[in-house]
Amino acid sequence: MEFLTSITAAEALRLLASFPVAPPHLEEVPLEAASSRVLASDIVARENIPPFHRSLVDGYAVKAKDTYGAREGTPAFLNIIGEVPVGRAAHVRLTDGQAAYVATGAMIPESADAVVMDEYARRAAEAVEITRAVRKAENICFEGEDVKIGETVLEKGRLISPFDLGVLAALGLITVTVCRRPECGLISSGNEVVPADATPGPGKIRDINTHTVADLVKRRGCLVRFAGIARDTVDAVAEKLLSVKGCDVILLSGGSSKGASDHMTAAIERLGGRILFHGLNIRPGKPTLFASLWGSGVFGLPGHPVSCAMVVLRFVLPFLERLKGEKTPGVKWIVKGLLTTNIPSAYGIEEYVRVNVSIKEDLASVTPIFAKSAVISTLSRAEGYVVVPEGKEGLETGEEVEVLPLG
Amino acid sequence: MEFLTSITAAEALRLLASFPVAPPHLEEVPLEAASSRVLASDIVARENIPPFHRSLVDGYAVKAKDTYGAREGTPAFLNIIGEVPVGRAAHVRLTDGQAAYVATGAMIPESADAVVMDEYARRAAEAVEITRAVRKAENICFEGEDVKIGETVLEKGRLISPFDLGVLAALGLITVTVCRRPECGLISSGNEVVPADATPGPGKIRDINTHTVADLVKRRGCLVRFAGIARDTVDAVAEKLLSVKGCDVILLSGGSSKGASDHMTAAIERLGGRILFHGLNIRPGKPTLFASLWGSGVFGLPGHPVSCAMVVLRFVLPFLERLKGEKTPGVKWIVKGLLTTNIPSAYGIEEYVRVNVSIKEDLASVTPIFAKSAVISTLSRAEGYVVVPEGKEGLETGEEVEVLPLG
Repeated sequence: MEFLTSITAAEALRLLASFPVAPPHLEEVPLEAASSRVLASDIVARENIPPFHRSLVDGYAVKAKDTYGAREGTPAFLNIIGEVPVGRAAHVRLTDGQAAYVATGAMIPESADAVVMDEYARRAAEAVEITRAVRKAENICFEGEDVKIGETVLEKGRLISPFDLGVLAALGLITVTVCRRPECGLISSGNEVVPADATPGPGKIRDINTHTVADLVKRRGCLVRFAGIARDTVDAVAEKLLSVKGCDVILLSGGSSKGASDHMTAAIERLGGRILFHGLNIRPGKPTLFASLWGSGVFGLPGHPVSCAMVVLRFVLPFLERLKGEKTPGVKWIVKGLLTTNIPSAYGIEEYVRVNVSIKEDLASVTPIFAKSAVISTLSRAEGYVVVPEGKEGLETGEEVEVLPLG
Repeated sequence: MEFLTSITAAEALRLLASFPVAPPHLEEVPLEAASSRVLASDIVARENIPPFHRSLVDGYAVKAKDTYGAREGTPAFLNIIGEVPVGRAAHVRLTDGQAAYVATGAMIPESADAVVMDEYARRAAEAVEITRAVRKAENICFEGEDVKIGETVLEKGRLISPFDLGVLAALGLITVTVCRRPECGLISSGNEVVPADATPGPGKIRDINTHTVADLVKRRGCLVRFAGIARDTVDAVAEKLLSVKGCDVILLSGGSSKGASDHMTAAIERLGGRILFHGLNIRPGKPTLFASLWGSGVFGLPGHPVSCAMVVLRFVLPFLERLKGEKTPGVKWIVKGLLTTNIPSAYGIEEYVRVNVSIKEDLASVTPIFAKSAVISTLSRAEGYVVVPEGKEGLETGEEVEVLPLG
């Protein structure tokens, strides 16, 4: 297949990582809509959290030194000078030998430096017996202990988590500047492809990739503009490409046949685009192309649904992170398990193998699902996938492998 | 603290798993809105996918036996009787010694049983030289090979994945019956708590838990009805509870102080509810309660943000799965790594420790973040958490641990 100038997966990822993308546009959203959005700038605290010293327990605010040596048999006796109600200013001030009652969350009175838990205090009218010494600072959350004024609490490029929302709320930031969602132009192609709501005539099949790809990119916070299904002609593909001009990236699925693939490249080139690679040393997913068109990236995705999905997972999603302005250093969530069967693979090809994982007594067994890349139901049934690296001729029964999530 | 009749985490999970919940209501949604929803019934295929034998490659449909023994030096010669265009019915029918051109995706003509890839075929006018033998069935995706009529392709209780959408689309199912999203009534409480858009006066802090909890449950596909912030009185808490009557579950945060906690239990009991447990042998999160009220579950969540979040992750989210009708057997996505520091812990307490994970050359180092449970920023900064089991007095430096995701 002379049109496939195949490159390796690593080369493709390098090329995609250096493809010039415009910095994302910004928008202001209310806190309730900020979840999973990409933070557009560092958040620097303009307040301390908490804004005052708070008690972490129900008990007695004291000067720690007044409790030194206290124990069950020889308690320390302190005079109670009052109580600080939760949610109010502490109007009392301790001198030596004094204590004030504080419930969890109450402000610590001035000159107190520790709190004795209720369990270690026996109250008697205006006095309290302390039966256990406390260290200085014990049971207090100090002003600014959570967040200090001037501190960068959240960094630009972060995907906003539920806990980040908590931090933003604590700081009183009820709107947040985030990166606008990238828009993905989505085109399906193929003379055999009809929409999901059609009854396929002879030789026809319903469009699968549109639904799978749209959902994969939406789950990553991207918008989708669906252009419809293009017939396999240069004109039809070019027309669909024009209809998604202005999108941040274009995903064009179909074109596993040489003819369809030729129309794709011809249409991209006719519109002034340039093919940057065509063909990857991966399986499934070989007939993938990437082009530059109107300053945006265009992915030509294979038509077989499994191939298409794997290319989206491995190549498109990391590229979308760049368009999104996302810079979270990802922790790789995996399952480690032992292979129940050999996985044969060709040297020089990076291979993605759908697998089932079954867990018994904390031991994960990983069983490959061998099926053609046209078979979408195997992706539904798989719990994840295993990568056979380019430099290996397969993996062996009993080998420990990393299972990656399919999303 | 006599009001805490503490039970273990395992006991609490068993109790929550046997708490009677109504089967979820159902609704019909379009395919585009079905992502991540819970499938309400098994999907049984009423069509074969693919609906006809398709070619997986560009090449020549043949009778495999006609190619046996063919190689570069001694090719097999076949007569080309036509071409099957992609997306059309195959009107040709092979007899011995014949071939028909098929592009990827084209229908296989009757009586052909394999496809020879283009690379192994040299065309010359009306004939083709086959330079490599094919096995029967090679390069064909057979009718029903992906999905067979009558097969249960997706099971009731599944969270619909991007690939499930592909399967549903392939079957022409453009609407899906899913379980209605459970509605979570959310109440914050505490005399010290003000909304995020307020400027806290002396002794006051802004509401954090509402934002964190709401987002954690929304990410799991639940709806949130927020009742606002209740003052620390039985009346105020009871009034807020009444305002979320009818919700599938009620999450009431705050109440780490004995007084606040007493108001919570009193309000629940006044409305006819029954406390099922109060106090968990976990850290953080000890002052958690669970009650039955109007036939629904009510969680009393600790006020400290980290405690509150951990209880939601460990106890509320699994309970919500039941309300959602979700039955996906979860694979546990983790990071395994080596502890860089000892984690001390008390025997008899299940402890949740926030951690940072740093990965160098495929080796993950796991560093605990030691901070008070009032400190929300540590959850923002953590990559995950580690569980110290009840029966262990801590974990040791160098020990391999499982890091679980915070969501």
